[in-house]
Amino acid sequence: MARSPSSLLSRICCATALGLGLLSSPVFAQTGNTDAMQVDKKELRAPKVIFFDVNETLLDLTAMRSSVGEALGGRDDLLPLWFSTMLHHSLVDSTTGRFHTFGEIGVASLLMVAEIEGIALTKEQAKTAIVTPLRSLPPHPDVHDGLQALKDKGYKLVSLTNSSNKGVYTQFKNANLLSYFDERLSVEDINLYKPDTRTYEWAIEKMGIAAEDAMLVAAHGWDIAGAKQAGWQAAFIARPGKVLYPLAQAPDTVVSGLDELVSQLPDVK
Amino acid sequence: MARSPSSLLSRICCATALGLGLLSSPVFAQTGNTDAMQVDKKELRAPKVIFFDVNETLLDLTAMRSSVGEALGGRDDLLPLWFSTMLHHSLVDSTTGRFHTFGEIGVASLLMVAEIEGIALTKEQAKTAIVTPLRSLPPHPDVHDGLQALKDKGYKLVSLTNSSNKGVYTQFKNANLLSYFDERLSVEDINLYKPDTRTYEWAIEKMGIAAEDAMLVAAHGWDIAGAKQAGWQAAFIARPGKVLYPLAQAPDTVVSGLDELVSQLPDVK
Repeated sequence: MARSPSSLLSRICCATALGLGLLSSPVFAQTGNTDAMQVDKKELRAPKVIFFDVNETLLDLTAMRSSVGEALGGRDDLLPLWFSTMLHHSLVDSTTGRFHTFGEIGVASLLMVAEIEGIALTKEQAKTAIVTPLRSLPPHPDVHDGLQALKDKGYKLVSLTNSSNKGVYTQFKNANLLSYFDERLSVEDINLYKPDTRTYEWAIEKMGIAAEDAMLVAAHGWDIAGAKQAGWQAAFIARPGKVLYPLAQAPDTVVSGLDELVSQLPDVK
Repeated sequence: MARSPSSLLSRICCATALGLGLLSSPVFAQTGNTDAMQVDKKELRAPKVIFFDVNETLLDLTAMRSSVGEALGGRDDLLPLWFSTMLHHSLVDSTTGRFHTFGEIGVASLLMVAEIEGIALTKEQAKTAIVTPLRSLPPHPDVHDGLQALKDKGYKLVSLTNSSNKGVYTQFKNANLLSYFDERLSVEDINLYKPDTRTYEWAIEKMGIAAEDAMLVAAHGWDIAGAKQAGWQAAFIARPGKVLYPLAQAPDTVVSGLDELVSQLPDVK
């Protein structure tokens, strides 16, 4: 089976083509393996609130590759396994009626991955590798201009993250993103993790809007899955290495970055 | 940070020592990174039903390394990422009120991992790589004798798996395990995945017993987490590469194999 290093690029190109309305309806969200999922090309409705996922969607997690890799004895290829283990165990907590912060689960997951791989790592070393770097992630290059453009168009922007309240505050402060958001919501307040449907229901209740007036912007297929199941519009940002979950409902649009989303949304001022 | 290839072995040795009562109470479940979790050394109560997880606990998933690796262009190091992605997305389904069989999620997860890694893979190729190999896994070497010994001691044995009904039937048929079990329960019947607490509640209701009369045997920390949260006894089998979830309740015992568990349980005939 041949490797196809160009498939990511072609997916992003496809997403770009989508945004420019170059392809007819319905079109494939992705040109690669998960192309069974189709995105019906349609006008996006103007949401009353645009909710943003944070980690990987706005902030670049690959900046943690070196710290996680260093903790794992040079195995920076284990970053995806660590993040997947963290996401899995956040839902292990949610489905068993327990809660720990995303940072705590991140540390526990790094310890588990290290143990599985036979790499010696103390809890303190794991904390050092994760907590500070996670709170210091840089924004993706399109984020500042994209958020400003959405505000200029009249949209209310709210973050909705698995990070803790303190965590996301510090992340936004370090990335100079605090001023763009009308509210910062953390699942910490309801002791559940996305994509539990109740997290989206709670978020719209907090903002006093109906599901059809909400839109989620996320680079995670599982987050899109939850938002669509809750009756929201959803925009998938095809960040490098991020793919849709082929068994979930399709997003309303697939974009390569926030700039492209801006062009698809009407002015509401 | 030094690699420590011997930590797995030392963990298993520690588990063995536990089983033989060589260590004083409380002792560490693991000697490695997640050693914050302590297992109180105590007598196991005789359960009315012993529930068994299947994949990795009874059947050796590493047999899939070659088929999954082949599908991923030779990258058999991606087996753990594939399995973690599958487990995560099983809970994405559970927490968003949807359901697909474990096999379907396995295929979708392989497609996602391939897409992320830029490896070309069709849905048919992914199915071929997963479905037949998953149903043909060999049992771990201690399984036949261990199950027979538990039956000889008078225990009722029930499987409780994320695999589908058809899937686990075929798995047990191929591994010659059908005859050991009084019942086979699949989460497919309630459209939820372990470790959702409701899967354990449903299982004891099906068997007509109270939580305190149930014991789960599993090689997954997340499964132990769910069973303990549901009020069951839980025995962790420290299969190679399997570790406990350090933020969950500790299991009642950690063993290196079924033979060791047999020695810790009283005769109930």
